[in-house]
Amino acid sequence: MANISAGRPRATMSTSRLEAFSDGVIAVAITLLVLDLRVPSPATPGSLARHLADQWPSFAAYFVSFLTIGVVWINHHAMLRRLASADHSVLMLNVALLMTIVVLPFTTSLMSAYLTAPAGQHLAAVIYGGSFLVFRLVFLVMQRHLLIHRAHLMHEPPTPALRRAILRRTAIGVVPYLLATLGGLLSPYLTLAINGSVALFYSLPAPDDRRAP
Amino acid sequence: MANISAGRPRATMSTSRLEAFSDGVIAVAITLLVLDLRVPSPATPGSLARHLADQWPSFAAYFVSFLTIGVVWINHHAMLRRLASADHSVLMLNVALLMTIVVLPFTTSLMSAYLTAPAGQHLAAVIYGGSFLVFRLVFLVMQRHLLIHRAHLMHEPPTPALRRAILRRTAIGVVPYLLATLGGLLSPYLTLAINGSVALFYSLPAPDDRRAP
Amino acid sequence: MANISAGRPRATMSTSRLEAFSDGVIAVAITLLVLDLRVPSPATPGSLARHLADQWPSFAAYFVSFLTIGVVWINHHAMLRRLASADHSVLMLNVALLMTIVVLPFTTSLMSAYLTAPAGQHLAAVIYGGSFLVFRLVFLVMQRHLLIHRAHLMHEPPTPALRRAILRRTAIGVVPYLLATLGGLLSPYLTLAINGSVALFYSLPAPDDRRAP
Amino acid sequence: MANISAGRPRATMSTSRLEAFSDGVIAVAITLLVLDLRVPSPATPGSLARHLADQWPSFAAYFVSFLTIGVVWINHHAMLRRLASADHSVLMLNVALLMTIVVLPFTTSLMSAYLTAPAGQHLAAVIYGGSFLVFRLVFLVMQRHLLIHRAHLMHEPPTPALRRAILRRTAIGVVPYLLATLGGLLSPYLTLAINGSVALFYSLPAPDDRRAP
Repeated sequence: MANISAGRPRATMSTSRLEAFSDGVIAVAITLLVLDLRVPSPATPGSLARHLADQWPSFAAYFVSFLTIGVVWINHHAMLRRLASADHSVLMLNVALLMTIVVLPFTTSLMSAYLTAPAGQHLAAVIYGGSFLVFRLVFLVMQRHLLIHRAHLMHEPPTPALRRAILRRTAIGVVPYLLATLGGLLSPYLTLAINGSVALFYSLPAPDDRRAP
Repeated sequence: MANISAGRPRATMSTSRLEAFSDGVIAVAITLLVLDLRVPSPATPGSLARHLADQWPSFAAYFVSFLTIGVVWINHHAMLRRLASADHSVLMLNVALLMTIVVLPFTTSLMSAYLTAPAGQHLAAVIYGGSFLVFRLVFLVMQRHLLIHRAHLMHEPPTPALRRAILRRTAIGVVPYLLATLGGLLSPYLTLAINGSVALFYSLPAPDDRRAP
Repeated sequence: MANISAGRPRATMSTSRLEAFSDGVIAVAITLLVLDLRVPSPATPGSLARHLADQWPSFAAYFVSFLTIGVVWINHHAMLRRLASADHSVLMLNVALLMTIVVLPFTTSLMSAYLTAPAGQHLAAVIYGGSFLVFRLVFLVMQRHLLIHRAHLMHEPPTPALRRAILRRTAIGVVPYLLATLGGLLSPYLTLAINGSVALFYSLPAPDDRRAP
Repeated sequence: MANISAGRPRATMSTSRLEAFSDGVIAVAITLLVLDLRVPSPATPGSLARHLADQWPSFAAYFVSFLTIGVVWINHHAMLRRLASADHSVLMLNVALLMTIVVLPFTTSLMSAYLTAPAGQHLAAVIYGGSFLVFRLVFLVMQRHLLIHRAHLMHEPPTPALRRAILRRTAIGVVPYLLATLGGLLSPYLTLAINGSVALFYSLPAPDDRRAP
């Protein structure tokens, strides 16, 4: 009776389907970011150059969010790759994680709309930073769940040392987004700058990448 | 002459393509939910906090629908996983099922727009609840068709006991959505609460998951 | 020098990637149909029931187009399944075919906007019917190209009899869409009715499906 | 410690996941082009035929951009197909490449909105041409990186002669987009014509395709 679908699902699923669905959701979410780049109406007074220049927050936010979600996608697969199969708890944590990813085009759009607005910038920045913070927290919860409670589902269970190293790094990854969120209370530009710096930092090759063949 | 494409298609298709296409459609549908989260115009009078607070039905509906479609995706794969191949009837039932899934972002948007409106809330709630009800009914029809009429397409045909158990659980899964739909006549909040509770219930680990390794 | 990428591409590609990309495009296109279902503003005078009832052309067009694209997807895979690999000509014909599929949400939206409009219904119906007609014609061109000029790329080249049967059926599939397009000159309802009937016809099991195990 | 996910990711990933994610992003981006085809409101004075005729820049830009992204997709796979696995640098260059692809529906929309506008056409054309130019430049950078610095990740490292031939062709592919971008200073129609001609050129079969079986 372990495999009854519908009703409360208890499926163990191969991770390839889990990865394919996650890929699809992340691919759509990252592409929806472009919908926030608006074409100024030719009927509006003022030059196109001016209208596009006024939209710079949208371009900056597009760049930062796209790069961040790109890194998110890489991290997500690095996490799932260790798994040989997924049970219901893994599937649902992944749904929760995807829920925090899919909301990012909305918070990105909010940030870019309010960055240069006369009011509401601080709240928009806190929400923008906070949406990435929530994503990283759910990511940490899922990483912990996999490494500690679902090690038996992995291709090869990690050694205690590797497990600690992964969890420490995942936990450290939360910190800059906490700062970015709190930074929004000071200045929305600070939030955007921190988020952008973090995305660029993770985009660069790691030092030992250069040594490795 | 069994494999003539175009014209009335009679293809037997491997389920991997069927799953990949379904994954794609469900991934897009679940991600489109974010389009219902609107960025308030900075030009509107009133604080951003207030505008976002007024949008709480959208956030609640996003949460409930995202979680529900996530569970739907898990159930859908649990159903298809038993199949070794799919004939035309399976493909078309799956198209019908996807049609009921793709409509969910629309009914979600309708629910969130009318939840706090002075009129139309009851109808919106009945449509919202009803859209999930129709999905569950088509799911039940497809589950029955597979288990009873297409058992020869499965990796291993289910035992009569397993078949009865699956169908009973699938049928029971229809009930809360029937209540949610009827509940809309009393109060739209009831519909949202029932749908949310059902999604949370299916998200929790089943009791025997805890025993299993 | 046969495999130089970039510049004029000459790649031979496995059909699995071709199918995956086509699946993705068709999945997005079929899901975008839901964007044509509009939530009436709660601020508009009149009851919600009335507003939704007035939108019936959108619901009818959603149903017809979704079902049609679902059948299109099935036919597309039945066609590609015979191929073992794809050369540049196959890839480009497939891009052309996808271009005619991606345009369908637009023509569907046009049809539903003008079905009950005081003017423009005939043109909208001709464009709606015509968009499906163009799709079927490109499908026929691609089917012919594969069967006649690229038989060496197939898992097993079709017998002359099978080839003729497939091409006859594919050519016959063009006819109803020609009628639907011309029918738009008489009445847009006729176009919608023909398109809907064709989609339903292809959805039904073929007679020999019932005999086959 | 080479495989720690989260924190700075150092994953080596199989290219199948890389291709699947890229396919998803390109499939969504190419399909979003249809959102630029607008249904004229039936309430607008003037005939539907006239409104659609006025929208011809949208249809032309849809055609050119769809064909171009289709060719982009083919080239992208031709490039990735040589790889056996991908390290962090390859993944991030691919994210950068996808970022330049996802922006194309925006620049396409800009081009079609301003092609016949009284002002702003030259800037719109330069941005439109420039967006394809940037894509080709990032493509060239990635191609160089793979062929020169990541040859050890390939199924079989290319011979020096093949490597030079690929890089020469990739570099030549930049030229028409440079011309299209500069051409926008003279006339936006020139930009559209060059982009369209290039897409058509790459769509045609290469001479040696005809000789090959």
